[in-house]
Amino acid sequence: MRRIKGEKKRRVQQVRASTEICHGGKILIVPLEGSHWVNMDIMIKALHSRGHSVVVVRTNKSWYIQDNSPHYRTITVPVTEAFNHDFINSIIKKIIDIERGESSLWSFASLQAEMFTAMFNMHRIMCKFATNMFKDKYLMNSLNESKYDLVLTDPAWGTGIMLAHALKLPLVYNVRWITSGEGHMAIAPSPLSYIPLTGSGLSDKMTFIQRVKNLIFSVIWQAQDGFLIHPQYQAVCDQFFGPEVRYSDLLQGADLWLMRVDFVFEFPRPTMPNVIYIGGFQCEPAKPLPEHLEEFVQSSGEHGVIIMSLGTFVSELPADITNVIAAAFAKLPQKVIWRHKGDRPATLGNNTLIVDWMPQNDLLGHPKMKLFVAHGGTNGVQEAMYHGVPVVGLPVFFDQYDNLLRLKERGAATLLTINTVDKDNNFVEAIQEVLNEPSYRMNMQRLSRLHRDQPITPLDNALFWIEFVMRHKGAAHLRTESYKMPWYSYHSVDVVLSFLATVAVITFLPLVFVRYVCLEKCMKRKTNKK
Amino acid sequence: MRRIKGEKKRRVQQVRASTEICHGGKILIVPLEGSHWVNMDIMIKALHSRGHSVVVVRTNKSWYIQDNSPHYRTITVPVTEAFNHDFINSIIKKIIDIERGESSLWSFASLQAEMFTAMFNMHRIMCKFATNMFKDKYLMNSLNESKYDLVLTDPAWGTGIMLAHALKLPLVYNVRWITSGEGHMAIAPSPLSYIPLTGSGLSDKMTFIQRVKNLIFSVIWQAQDGFLIHPQYQAVCDQFFGPEVRYSDLLQGADLWLMRVDFVFEFPRPTMPNVIYIGGFQCEPAKPLPEHLEEFVQSSGEHGVIIMSLGTFVSELPADITNVIAAAFAKLPQKVIWRHKGDRPATLGNNTLIVDWMPQNDLLGHPKMKLFVAHGGTNGVQEAMYHGVPVVGLPVFFDQYDNLLRLKERGAATLLTINTVDKDNNFVEAIQEVLNEPSYRMNMQRLSRLHRDQPITPLDNALFWIEFVMRHKGAAHLRTESYKMPWYSYHSVDVVLSFLATVAVITFLPLVFVRYVCLEKCMKRKTNKK
Repeated sequence: MRRIKGEKKRRVQQVRASTEICHGGKILIVPLEGSHWVNMDIMIKALHSRGHSVVVVRTNKSWYIQDNSPHYRTITVPVTEAFNHDFINSIIKKIIDIERGESSLWSFASLQAEMFTAMFNMHRIMCKFATNMFKDKYLMNSLNESKYDLVLTDPAWGTGIMLAHALKLPLVYNVRWITSGEGHMAIAPSPLSYIPLTGSGLSDKMTFIQRVKNLIFSVIWQAQDGFLIHPQYQAVCDQFFGPEVRYSDLLQGADLWLMRVDFVFEFPRPTMPNVIYIGGFQCEPAKPLPEHLEEFVQSSGEHGVIIMSLGTFVSELPADITNVIAAAFAKLPQKVIWRHKGDRPATLGNNTLIVDWMPQNDLLGHPKMKLFVAHGGTNGVQEAMYHGVPVVGLPVFFDQYDNLLRLKERGAATLLTINTVDKDNNFVEAIQEVLNEPSYRMNMQRLSRLHRDQPITPLDNALFWIEFVMRHKGAAHLRTESYKMPWYSYHSVDVVLSFLATVAVITFLPLVFVRYVCLEKCMKRKTNKK
Repeated sequence: MRRIKGEKKRRVQQVRASTEICHGGKILIVPLEGSHWVNMDIMIKALHSRGHSVVVVRTNKSWYIQDNSPHYRTITVPVTEAFNHDFINSIIKKIIDIERGESSLWSFASLQAEMFTAMFNMHRIMCKFATNMFKDKYLMNSLNESKYDLVLTDPAWGTGIMLAHALKLPLVYNVRWITSGEGHMAIAPSPLSYIPLTGSGLSDKMTFIQRVKNLIFSVIWQAQDGFLIHPQYQAVCDQFFGPEVRYSDLLQGADLWLMRVDFVFEFPRPTMPNVIYIGGFQCEPAKPLPEHLEEFVQSSGEHGVIIMSLGTFVSELPADITNVIAAAFAKLPQKVIWRHKGDRPATLGNNTLIVDWMPQNDLLGHPKMKLFVAHGGTNGVQEAMYHGVPVVGLPVFFDQYDNLLRLKERGAATLLTINTVDKDNNFVEAIQEVLNEPSYRMNMQRLSRLHRDQPITPLDNALFWIEFVMRHKGAAHLRTESYKMPWYSYHSVDVVLSFLATVAVITFLPLVFVRYVCLEKCMKRKTNKK
């Protein structure tokens, strides 16, 4: 089929209509930290460039969210305790020890306990954040008087959700995770037979045993949510809104879910009318590289360039692993750019450039880019997909294995675990396989073509729907309120039980009657005989 | 909030990208008759104007689909029997008699039997259509050699679905109904607790009794599908594809479902990634009226105009009802345009113009339009919504009551049944209520604003996704194949039962063991005592 560029009159009219924009909107944002903030910041800049004024609510202990920005104004709520995000390095060390078999069952239990505690503490601090904010009458009055159009938040933390309720404002999510795993789980029917739970490492095609595993993961997530996390937020709701306001209703009642995936990446699954897919909204065509990087990249000649990054959180790997990685890179004819913060590995080759930070999107979009060694964070994976660069995955924790699995299932990535990197040339062989087997690149470029072939870019889609909520004061018509039904009604348990009871009565009543009549007759006969 | 027109650089770039079109695509269409054809014809004209060549497959007994058109070529498959669509007038007469209480239970049973028979016969003829086509080796070879890009069909009839399988082509639906009710029911989880079944006359908020009714409707639909309709198509599959090919799999396995509703009209519900909403794709801004109609409309002065149409199928109502309707219209200060094919009512007023056909969309979009008296077909309801014209509904059969109910629930319509039209000034009062109570018009205009506020028009969206399927040879990544699982796996019945069995074994095994040990000891003691 021939593809040409053309502009039909009707299309152009349509375009004009879709560029009607809302100016002067006022948006209150309660963001999350880390890579989530990197995302939200892109959205904020886009909203700012469309003429909206953005106010960001953060704590005084924020790690990422800057106080001063040309794109937004901040409101800082004091909390006494900061979340200690150094726990991540301690967790990574434990994970590596466990994966290497150097640890006992006790270490495994202690790792799980540490992760649960960290999560519990994070939500505890978020609840403190909300409590301090709601107690501050002056602040709440001023927020009320500012007449915002909506609250935009990441619902993996609950402060923004409760703030929207307190201010009676429409609520929009920039979301991938909620407290109980993947965002869809809160509102879309999710049959466990083909919807793999977060962290289960399963795909949408499962064996019987895998489906059992999936059910167990579902129980763990729900228990964690029901016993550890929701009660904390519910306590804040009880204190400020009264016990009739359920936190889970507030979470499920958002107007729109701007979901940071799409179905080129995610396995197909049931969804809801108020879920808008914006996966890869942060991706854009590559900009020119800084001069020194461009020079380095060009020096790779026909062999091209590899980049490696383990994301925002992972700053250090154990020296023995980094040495193996560096030695593997040194064997390759490609040039390598490695985002690495620890000590300089002793085995580093001349072909490898170590950097503190790199323009990842611009490098991935460079024509000389051959391969991305990635930890599997959503952002990196989406950028690799957007630019069609195949991946060697080195997942560490959270959703990283699940993310990389989605690429692997489509033949666009290969996966290593941290514990096998240093064994039997595993790492260099994985890289060479992806470099030399053309199907990896072809599959990733197919994903890239599918992902880019949308009627409107994901970022424009996000902006359209945020402004839609402003124009119509919400999007209630897209939201089912079925979550307000009791579970037995939602699942028709009451109807089915009544139906079965009726059938039983209709079946047994004549039997009982017949039996009664027979007995009566028998008795009479006996009496007569006597 | 101020709304202005503006064009940002990035938006324009995006627009250019989204207007990249596929030229020279070859599309094979197996349409449905009646108002479904009216819809499909609009789609065909749009596809033709985008440079695609369209071939329509029809029978020699087609009622609506013309043989000659500048927009498509036809392939005509001979069948010996035509579907007798006059049955509709007979059914309408029976419905009116029943609604008026002039009929016995016997008439009700006979009506149901007649409707089932008509449906059964319709699908029987469609199966004959498919059989004759598949038997014609020459035709099938020629279709195969023509290398179409996809089959576009309306899955309420199954011929196109099986043809796509026979030709191994991607399959796209222009759909609202399937054989077992509303299209979503085939692929999206549809909890009966808040998804009202077609024909049930229920909304998404149901009492316990209504949920029981909904379950009964679900059973009826499924029985009708399972015993009357699917077996006919399955027999064709068995004959030509072998028994391992299940018709229900073919139905569920379409690449895309272009669904002729949106969530301004339909109650919010779970959906799937491969369902694209194109509700109202046939609507467009009003064109100028023919001179005589414009003159008539203008003569209404400040009072404005009312139009009435009972759609494609209903040509005649009983004379006593049309007389009441005409007399009611005669009392109004408005001018009335009435699409009516029967005898001229004796009570017709000077303000009422009877027409055989009218440019409904152009009239609905006229500034003097005040009210639409409609039977509730999807097309008319969507057009009324698009133009923001409130409705007095006179539903007769099929989905009409359900369609009008959706407007009524949003305060944009009022409903009458045919049997109450002629009692106590009901009809004229209903019209006056909608004319005089401003909320009807305001609510409908709110729906209109919501419906029109989309990033891309429904027709452009339909065209984009049809061309997407051409560009990528299908859209498998948007389609879950969970429908291929056995029901007990899909609903995790096997997993849950195994889990319960394991729990039971773990609980009872120690008890059994303890009991065994105790018994052993007791026995020994007894033996010792002896």
